[in-house]
Amino acid sequence: MEYAIELAKKAFEIGEVPVGAVVVQRKSGIIVGEGFNRRECDSDPLAHAEVIAIRKAARKLGSWRLSGCDLYVTLEPCAMCCGAIINSRIERVYFGAYDLNAGCVHSMTDMFVMPFNHKPEAYGGIMEQQCAGLLKDFFAGKR
Amino acid sequence: MEYAIELAKKAFEIGEVPVGAVVVQRKSGIIVGEGFNRRECDSDPLAHAEVIAIRKAARKLGSWRLSGCDLYVTLEPCAMCCGAIINSRIERVYFGAYDLNAGCVHSMTDMFVMPFNHKPEAYGGIMEQQCAGLLKDFFAGKR
Repeated sequence: MEYAIELAKKAFEIGEVPVGAVVVQRKSGIIVGEGFNRRECDSDPLAHAEVIAIRKAARKLGSWRLSGCDLYVTLEPCAMCCGAIINSRIERVYFGAYDLNAGCVHSMTDMFVMPFNHKPEAYGGIMEQQCAGLLKDFFAGKR
Repeated sequence: MEYAIELAKKAFEIGEVPVGAVVVQRKSGIIVGEGFNRRECDSDPLAHAEVIAIRKAARKLGSWRLSGCDLYVTLEPCAMCCGAIINSRIERVYFGAYDLNAGCVHSMTDMFVMPFNHKPEAYGGIMEQQCAGLLKDFFAGKR
């Protein structure tokens, strides 16, 4: 999660909402994918940190199935990212700050308990203060 | 929808689940993005027809906001694609076949009525027989 926070800081530096994500292959402990939010700079509605990290991990591992991989992300995933996590078979999700407006693991709904063909485990509030603090600083600077 | 079906046939030809999608800018009637399912050939869990079409449309229009655009897709969108539709502000979704196992517009849940910051309109069952027939033929050939 510390590295995901470093990635979120990179998003902050380029004026993007500061969210960072990494995909870790559990058995090796190796980071196989990483990303930070680039929605504005790439003009891409899909360019959330999680989606970028998942795409890189799939490319690196040569498969769309990321079984045995975990995702660390500084903000609770939105509906699209929860769907991407389910579709890629990520096993565990660790997130930092809760997103009361769009979070779909706990805040608005829990997509991981719905009867889809894969149900990731999820753990929220990891290093929450640092993750939420970055977001708070970012939006304070926008006012 | 006819063109989306043509795209779905391209997926079929390369051994992918046959789903096709197009994004249309309503005021001009122009197709600004198109895609077909490439999950296996690209080893990319995100490579659903809708995601590819949305990414291309955003690139073409130079914005992640696809307000004023509609999506035509041969199969009811999954959770990830519904999230991508919400995030990209697509206004209307027209889909063909219903997906009882993963569809999130009608079959498993209705993500477009949930209290997200954007609620697309959706219309299902458009040219359903052709859209569903392609999928049926594909899976029959896999047995």
